Amino acid sequence: MVPPRISIKLCYDIVSPYSYLAFETLTQYRELWNIDLELCPYFLGGIMVAANNRPPMSVKLKGEYLSQDIKRLGEEAGLKINVAWVNNPPNTMGVARFLRAYKDVSSQAELESVSRRLFVEMFSGERSPSDPGFLGCLVPDLISEDKLKQVIARSGSQEIKDLVKTESAALVKDYGAFGFPWIIVRRGDGTTNSFFGSDRFGNMAWWLGSEYKWQGPRPDVPKSKL
Amino acid sequence: MVPPRISIKLCYDIVSPYSYLAFETLTQYRELWNIDLELCPYFLGGIMVAANNRPPMSVKLKGEYLSQDIKRLGEEAGLKINVAWVNNPPNTMGVARFLRAYKDVSSQAELESVSRRLFVEMFSGERSPSDPGFLGCLVPDLISEDKLKQVIARSGSQEIKDLVKTESAALVKDYGAFGFPWIIVRRGDGTTNSFFGSDRFGNMAWWLGSEYKWQGPRPDVPKSKL
Repeated sequence: MVPPRISIKLCYDIVSPYSYLAFETLTQYRELWNIDLELCPYFLGGIMVAANNRPPMSVKLKGEYLSQDIKRLGEEAGLKINVAWVNNPPNTMGVARFLRAYKDVSSQAELESVSRRLFVEMFSGERSPSDPGFLGCLVPDLISEDKLKQVIARSGSQEIKDLVKTESAALVKDYGAFGFPWIIVRRGDGTTNSFFGSDRFGNMAWWLGSEYKWQGPRPDVPKSKL
Repeated sequence: MVPPRISIKLCYDIVSPYSYLAFETLTQYRELWNIDLELCPYFLGGIMVAANNRPPMSVKLKGEYLSQDIKRLGEEAGLKINVAWVNNPPNTMGVARFLRAYKDVSSQAELESVSRRLFVEMFSGERSPSDPGFLGCLVPDLISEDKLKQVIARSGSQEIKDLVKTESAALVKDYGAFGFPWIIVRRGDGTTNSFFGSDRFGNMAWWLGSEYKWQGPRPDVPKSKL
C-alpha cells in the first residue's frame, strides 16, 4: 500500500556529511513514502553566516566526536564517509554554484546522480572541492566535457552568484534554517514542517502518520543480513 | 529472548531536554536490551565551560528550532516538554550538586524516581530550578522533609562541590564529552563507545548487534495505537 503523496525539499551542500546521509535516506525512501522529492543545492557557508552559526568543528571535542559519529552512522547506512578535514571545512562555494546552475538545465534524476557522485568524491577525501579538477569526476559518464564547461561558465555568472545568495537568505528568513541538511516536508493534508539533520526520520515518520514507517537507513536490507 | 547484558552510563543534567528524552528511552529499554543502567547526574554548565562549548540557544534560529523540535520529539515520546527559557538556560548547579549528593545515599531506583520528578518539574516550566522551593516537589512521597534537608546540606559541602567539579573534568578529558546527554555504552564483548544526544538509539542498536532492536521511543505502545 502506497501512502498518500508527500513532498519533500532537501536543502544541502556536499560539504555536509549529514546531508549525504539524508540524501541517501530520502532517495531510498522515495517510493516507500511516495515522496515528490526536490533536491535543492545551497552553499552552507552562506547559510551559516546569515544565521550567525559556526561549524561544529569550531568546538574541538565536537569535531572529534563528529568524525567518530559520522563513521558509525556511515557504516550503518552502508556508506563510506571520510571527513578528512579537522578544523574548518573546505570551501564549496564553487560546487554549490555549479549545482545551482546545473539544476536549471537538468532533470531531478540527473541532479541526483551528479550530487551523489560529488558526495562520494567529497567523502573519499582524495581531493578538495575547491580543486579545479574536482568536478572532473563527473566526466564523461554523467556529463560530457562540453556540457561541464558550459555549466561551469554559467556558474560563475553574476546571475547564478546572486541566485545562490538570495535563495540562501530566503531559506534562513522564511524557514529559519541555520545549517544542513534542512528538510522541508509537506504532508498530504498540506501542513508543512522543517526538520534539521539526518537524525529526525523516525520523528518525521511519526509526524507524517502511521502509513509512513521508519525502518532505519537501509530499508532495502533485511535486518538479519546486517 | 533477552540479549546479552550491556552496561550504560547516562550522564545528564535536568536542564537538558534531550537528556530527559534519553532518560525515558533508556529506562524504557532497560529490560528489552538487558541494560545495567547507571544514572550519572552532572552540571551541564561545567561541561560546557570545560569543553569550550556554548548553549545551542546562543544561535537565535537554533533556539527557535530547538523549541519546535523538542515539542515534536516530546509528543512522539508521550512527554510534556515545555522549554520556557529563550536565551540562556536557567542555572542548575544547585540541583546537580543535590543529585550528586543524593546518589551517594540512594538506590538507583530512588535516584531514577527523583530524577524523573525533577525533569517533570523542570519542563512543566512552572518554576526555575534555582528557586529555593524547586526541590520541594520531591516531598513527601519521594523524600521526607528531614532527608531533603540533610541531602541539601551535604550538597553545599566542599566535598560535593569538588566532586561535581572533578567528575565533570574527567568526563570531558577521558570521554570527550561536550554536552548532554552523554551516553557511554559497554557491549557484551567489552567494547565501549560514547553517544551524544537522544537521537542515536537506532545507530546504538545497530552497533550493539541484531539482538538489540530499536522500536522508537515508545516500544510499549503498539504502532497501531499511536
